[in-house]
Amino acid sequence: MTLENISQNKVYQGWHKQYSHHSSSLQCDMQFAIFLPPNARQGEPVPVLYWLSGLTCSDQNFMQKAGAFRKAAELGIAIVAMDTSPRGEQVADDDNYDLGQGAGFYLNATQAPWAEHYRMYDYVTQELPKLIEANFPVSNRKAIAGHSMGGHGALTIGLKNPQQYCSISAFSPIVNPMQCPWGQKAFSAYLGHDIETWKPYDSCELIKQTDCQLPILVDQGDADNFLLEQLHTDTLVEAAKNYPGEINIRMQAGYDHSYFFISSFIEEHLAFHSQFLNA
Amino acid sequence: MTLENISQNKVYQGWHKQYSHHSSSLQCDMQFAIFLPPNARQGEPVPVLYWLSGLTCSDQNFMQKAGAFRKAAELGIAIVAMDTSPRGEQVADDDNYDLGQGAGFYLNATQAPWAEHYRMYDYVTQELPKLIEANFPVSNRKAIAGHSMGGHGALTIGLKNPQQYCSISAFSPIVNPMQCPWGQKAFSAYLGHDIETWKPYDSCELIKQTDCQLPILVDQGDADNFLLEQLHTDTLVEAAKNYPGEINIRMQAGYDHSYFFISSFIEEHLAFHSQFLNA
Repeated sequence: MTLENISQNKVYQGWHKQYSHHSSSLQCDMQFAIFLPPNARQGEPVPVLYWLSGLTCSDQNFMQKAGAFRKAAELGIAIVAMDTSPRGEQVADDDNYDLGQGAGFYLNATQAPWAEHYRMYDYVTQELPKLIEANFPVSNRKAIAGHSMGGHGALTIGLKNPQQYCSISAFSPIVNPMQCPWGQKAFSAYLGHDIETWKPYDSCELIKQTDCQLPILVDQGDADNFLLEQLHTDTLVEAAKNYPGEINIRMQAGYDHSYFFISSFIEEHLAFHSQFLNA
Repeated sequence: MTLENISQNKVYQGWHKQYSHHSSSLQCDMQFAIFLPPNARQGEPVPVLYWLSGLTCSDQNFMQKAGAFRKAAELGIAIVAMDTSPRGEQVADDDNYDLGQGAGFYLNATQAPWAEHYRMYDYVTQELPKLIEANFPVSNRKAIAGHSMGGHGALTIGLKNPQQYCSISAFSPIVNPMQCPWGQKAFSAYLGHDIETWKPYDSCELIKQTDCQLPILVDQGDADNFLLEQLHTDTLVEAAKNYPGEINIRMQAGYDHSYFFISSFIEEHLAFHSQFLNA
């Protein structure tokens, strides 16, 4: 559990810091970044939003491009952004951007050569929160959010672990990976060909039969190039009809899949989570 | 004056758009980016903030990392971010990051091999504003701002062209390039060894004897790695003692040279410029 601080930048009177550590779940060295709001050292520990990024991202895409710190500083919310897969020369990889390093899909792989390192589900739900809560002035109140593959991660992890989180949100999530090319390719490789094993990692499957009552906010741009083939937001709308909690799925006119979209609504997501994190 | 639109993203109800065009001042193809606030198409033309970036940057660093659009949308200010030098295989270059492509220093070079293309001063003060005002729903009210080498550019260009701009601001500017390694290297190459020719590109020289009365805001982080050797903020404080306009030079405790710093204060810079742009 040794953390090495590799960078720090003051931002909005708080701090953005990057760390590396050896991950026991992933069996490799990992980096993550944390934003600590200005009140984090003033007594009360602050709640944490865990951010899960999309394909090809590192811990830095969100931290550098989302424009989240003004509001997070104001609301007193820490943000943790992690990498999107295990990393390193010894870690299995693929030449394509949508499999292997940068494309961990927030699951525990069961198939060779992936099973040895690709256990992002355990990393996000167990190892990383323990590490964060042991080393930073934060409370155990957590929310989870993400973009695209990370939106899939936030929804599936939140729905399966309602006791761990206060709220869930997603931008442009891959909501039905069992039925789209990105998901089918990744799940075949990581989980094998028995599609029963895919269902615990599919938001549309999970939400139909969950006991989770966490509030959920989803934003999806209607000018997103990936909407029709990969994201399937309409399937989530249908599947969520009997969801026991509040779910708000918003189509945003004219917005695409980029961080320009995320930055336009991240303050609303932070305000959404704050209602429950700071309740 | 043909513009080619190469990307567009809706952001904060406005638009971020990238264009390429052939520059007659620079004799090469150039890219720039523009943010148009949501009110830009609703009648009244909007004023424009020109942003000048630092060493190695393109038109995208500011647009992706500064977090400026929330406030610019609210205030109804367009933002134009340009590249930091002429570009292309036919354009003279250097292996180092602080000379040649990505390091144009916002001047008109007089020395071979630079003089043919390196005329960023003409590009910023003449060609680009004409292009912008001919092609977008903007007024002729302009402000100028920048970071590091671009802070030097904003200060020198603003001080020499007070009739063109309403206000000037800078983050971490190189205020006295004649007296720092970055400036001496670039000015020797671009302008030759007669230091009289350097003075029109040195903020500290200009501000001592200017008639410019434009309001100026400067922010400088006191944890900036480049402060002591390259930036020389204290020299500007001294040189500006008899400046005929209002000048506010702020040292910001704990902040460094990064976009995390810029993003922390860009809204204050936009509010500063808005007082004069929207007056």
